[in-house]
Amino acid sequence: MGKIAFEQNQHPKQKPDQSKLGFGKHFTDHMFIMDYTDGKGWHDARIVPYAPIALEPSSMVFHYGQAVFEGLKAYKTSDNEILLFRPDKNMERLNKSNDRLSIPAIDEEFMIEAIKELVRVDADWIPVEEGTSLYIRPFIIATEPFLGVHASHNYMFIVILSPVGAYYAEGIQPVKINVESHYVRAVRGGMGSAKTAGNYAASLRAQVEAQESGYSQVLWLDGIEKKYIEEVGSMNVFFKVNGEVLTPELNGSILDGVTRNSIIALLKSWNVPVVERRVSIEELFEAHANGTLEEAFGTGTAAVISPIGELNWDDKNIVINEGNIGELSQRLYDTVTGIQRGTLADTLGWTVKVEK
Amino acid sequence: MGKIAFEQNQHPKQKPDQSKLGFGKHFTDHMFIMDYTDGKGWHDARIVPYAPIALEPSSMVFHYGQAVFEGLKAYKTSDNEILLFRPDKNMERLNKSNDRLSIPAIDEEFMIEAIKELVRVDADWIPVEEGTSLYIRPFIIATEPFLGVHASHNYMFIVILSPVGAYYAEGIQPVKINVESHYVRAVRGGMGSAKTAGNYAASLRAQVEAQESGYSQVLWLDGIEKKYIEEVGSMNVFFKVNGEVLTPELNGSILDGVTRNSIIALLKSWNVPVVERRVSIEELFEAHANGTLEEAFGTGTAAVISPIGELNWDDKNIVINEGNIGELSQRLYDTVTGIQRGTLADTLGWTVKVEK
Repeated sequence: MGKIAFEQNQHPKQKPDQSKLGFGKHFTDHMFIMDYTDGKGWHDARIVPYAPIALEPSSMVFHYGQAVFEGLKAYKTSDNEILLFRPDKNMERLNKSNDRLSIPAIDEEFMIEAIKELVRVDADWIPVEEGTSLYIRPFIIATEPFLGVHASHNYMFIVILSPVGAYYAEGIQPVKINVESHYVRAVRGGMGSAKTAGNYAASLRAQVEAQESGYSQVLWLDGIEKKYIEEVGSMNVFFKVNGEVLTPELNGSILDGVTRNSIIALLKSWNVPVVERRVSIEELFEAHANGTLEEAFGTGTAAVISPIGELNWDDKNIVINEGNIGELSQRLYDTVTGIQRGTLADTLGWTVKVEK
Repeated sequence: MGKIAFEQNQHPKQKPDQSKLGFGKHFTDHMFIMDYTDGKGWHDARIVPYAPIALEPSSMVFHYGQAVFEGLKAYKTSDNEILLFRPDKNMERLNKSNDRLSIPAIDEEFMIEAIKELVRVDADWIPVEEGTSLYIRPFIIATEPFLGVHASHNYMFIVILSPVGAYYAEGIQPVKINVESHYVRAVRGGMGSAKTAGNYAASLRAQVEAQESGYSQVLWLDGIEKKYIEEVGSMNVFFKVNGEVLTPELNGSILDGVTRNSIIALLKSWNVPVVERRVSIEELFEAHANGTLEEAFGTGTAAVISPIGELNWDDKNIVINEGNIGELSQRLYDTVTGIQRGTLADTLGWTVKVEK
């Protein structure tokens, strides 16, 4: 590894209208690539023009799904500084995902430097309008051209960048969520705590069905008893009950979200009681019945905070906080996004400056 | 769909030595490709020279794992006829996998014709040595260049062909299997009954650990109670206990194997009792203790029958049939492979001739 080769894109694209970015549709002029070869390790780190990649049709990623990824964002401050939010957490988790998927570990510090370098190269792509950012997608895929089922001997590590729009173009809208009673996302002993392609594949069918019924996401229950809540869509989930914030503990089948971790740390720093434990769906519906279910929200890199306005569980339907975003949810959203954009003091040391 | 376009490979490869084929390493001169576009359906079916495929790095298959596949074989008989084995079952299952993964259905009859056409084009690649065959790998991948989590709007259906060697180059060798007590392959409500990339990704870590301990595969237990047997490696599994053949029922978390289905049909036609039900690992170890565990074997397209000579479950180890292939296992292997190769009468109507 060590040095990163660089090939300038001679045909830069026109940048999209910052008011119409959406999410994950536009990509910048360059990408980072690094190869892994058994016996040689990770090698040939390079930043090259963004372009299609050519893979053998027998490449193992197409057949046996060895694929892991991360998602984080770069922000441009009003002083024109570039900030990353906790990239160390993403690279640490990437190696945990690698471990579960039998993919060779990457050098976390080197990859943070590589991401910084790529962001520097495409710094002009970072949008500046309110709520926008540059989404960073590092991912690793198995490339050995072989149809036997085993851990691949070859991989590619790729990082691509996508300027993304405000998640809430028209202000934060609480969402309607269906509690999924049939499909299971992941189970203890499975790969639910890894950020790997198969977990998302497993989630699609339930999401399609929920959307057909007018819900924007599903709330997953545990695969064993179908009693305990796990995640909402592809976000972690929090509930404020009687002044206390509850979130499912890291039990091996849910993702150890960077936003989740940050929310917990912020709440603790504010002396708001926050508890990581098993939380049953029944408990939440009972809390709603006795008037103590105060707020509910999902957390993730894309939306930061996604308030839940309505929950449907089989034939039972509840509205949370009259369908509005809660006070604490709003404060968390404002604080995290403020730190990310450099408008609030980074008292917990989370942002990392990309030097020019 | 309808017609299949054809582009001849002008640079055919040299064919590999039939005695050193191995599995899934060599590929023929052509491949089948068909595209799916939302609103247009499957289109542009074509047979083209085998070559790398170029995909956007944001293609959804790399990130969210929407990928399904099948595996079947073509055989050349001593009369130079080409036979496929139950391709209708594979295409039927592919559509079941599509359904679970929210991938659009394919036209099963058209795809059988397309596979026949591709096999005809590369018929010279079908090896003829004892135990060899042409492995056929149809697969579908999500190709929409978009990072949001939803069912892709674009797909590619690809079929590649690989001449494969005798699975048992030195006669059938019973294998040593470790019963997996920690990792879980799939769970009820998950996608275990679909032939999709993520299931294989989920299995790799346990396989690596088993191999490090001297076992060639793992026997999966159910993800709920870790009591009931599911599959062995990427094969279905059968146990002969006191004259009766037991195999796990299709419970939603195991694969509906074509070889499994064929074995059950053959046993029934021979009036050998065969029962599909929940089978606990404890029951099998008890049967061994009282001397009634007579045979054990995995079934799958690659090996057809893979006898199990030894089972390890935590600190308990048992040897089955003195580590030798059982009489019934051998008869099943000889019968299935005989029908596949056209040396035995196809009394159950399983083989499909590829006309020249």
